Amino acid sequence: MQRPYKHIDATEIQGFEKVFRANLINSLSGLKPANLIGTTSQDGQTNLAIFSSVIHLGADPALLGFIQRPLGEQSHTYKNIKETGYYTINHIQEHIVEQAHYTAARFSREESEFEACCLTPEYLAQFHAPFVQESLVKIGMRFKQEIPLTINNTILMIGQIEHVFLPEHVVLDKGNLALDETAAVCVSGLDTYYRVSKLAQFPYSKTTNLPNFSQKSDRNSSKR
Amino acid sequence: MQRPYKHIDATEIQGFEKVFRANLINSLSGLKPANLIGTTSQDGQTNLAIFSSVIHLGADPALLGFIQRPLGEQSHTYKNIKETGYYTINHIQEHIVEQAHYTAARFSREESEFEACCLTPEYLAQFHAPFVQESLVKIGMRFKQEIPLTINNTILMIGQIEHVFLPEHVVLDKGNLALDETAAVCVSGLDTYYRVSKLAQFPYSKTTNLPNFSQKSDRNSSKR
Repeated sequence: MQRPYKHIDATEIQGFEKVFRANLINSLSGLKPANLIGTTSQDGQTNLAIFSSVIHLGADPALLGFIQRPLGEQSHTYKNIKETGYYTINHIQEHIVEQAHYTAARFSREESEFEACCLTPEYLAQFHAPFVQESLVKIGMRFKQEIPLTINNTILMIGQIEHVFLPEHVVLDKGNLALDETAAVCVSGLDTYYRVSKLAQFPYSKTTNLPNFSQKSDRNSSKR
Repeated sequence: MQRPYKHIDATEIQGFEKVFRANLINSLSGLKPANLIGTTSQDGQTNLAIFSSVIHLGADPALLGFIQRPLGEQSHTYKNIKETGYYTINHIQEHIVEQAHYTAARFSREESEFEACCLTPEYLAQFHAPFVQESLVKIGMRFKQEIPLTINNTILMIGQIEHVFLPEHVVLDKGNLALDETAAVCVSGLDTYYRVSKLAQFPYSKTTNLPNFSQKSDRNSSKR
């Protein structure tokens, strides 16, 4: 293992100052997707919030999840989803990353993050919840199920994809999205955003099409 | 919304050819972390598998989750975790991305992906499960709980962080990890890997420290 390296054990983690621990643990899962979730209350008040916990659950049915933090006075996204049954997931791209970041501030329920952060609610296909006009990849979600994670009072929220809106050219031949072309960002920890560029694409992996890694590695070694 | 754009609804999604749909839906959650999960069976046979579903669940206690696909003949990672109670999560960096990708091939339980893909099992701090020597960020996990997601037969696997090993210089002052310095990669869909570069870091967002977005946006407009 590369030196000097740091070994941190559970006791040390427990002893870290709160913000330091939050930043460290939030960075450990690796790079995270950056999305904005749009909702409307029963009374028609719009809400928008950044989430780094959206996760693919399955393609058939087409399900996405996200982690709702322990419920509190705020939790407007959760309340609106429970009231109305619908929400939108909108990718965050480079041109809106700063506005998206600040949707996390504690606005009152009467204030809309759309307005405060200069993003535009967009209503498409008679869908109940507002999309983010500025986002290039917008997903309309129908709420399906909430699963309380009693271990730390978070909630796994599960929804099914009802609509997708995105520029035609970013859908590649085999269904992949060119997330570098949309300038999608990812996030690390609580406050750091990364841009992406394509590194590699590999064939479907089978035991019968393995590259000859040992030869490659010999080649690399002999180069050193 | 930027034109020409594509509107895809639930019926169309359902009608797509299977691989196309899998690629599309797997791309929609946004950029995903790329990790290798290392385990050992009761009999001491090592296993290594790529996962793009590792997710931060909470910092106190320090919990990470991942989604286990519907169980089948294979599912060696799941079986080993249930047998032994321990596993490792290892970030995938640029220098091992191809090897990591091919750990997804269907090896038999008697074959180790470590060997087949030329990665090195590393035992640290008397931890039961093998780390990936070549990875720069390695996490030792204790299995805590499995939550069946009956909606599609996947399972949310939850574990607690017991050990972290990483190069000292990538832990920044406030606990964030410099994931660009480690050359961590993220993944989109099933086969496309992206490298990252730092785009921005913003202060903790409060309603009292909002940038003046409307002024910025006016400025941008007047430039056009």
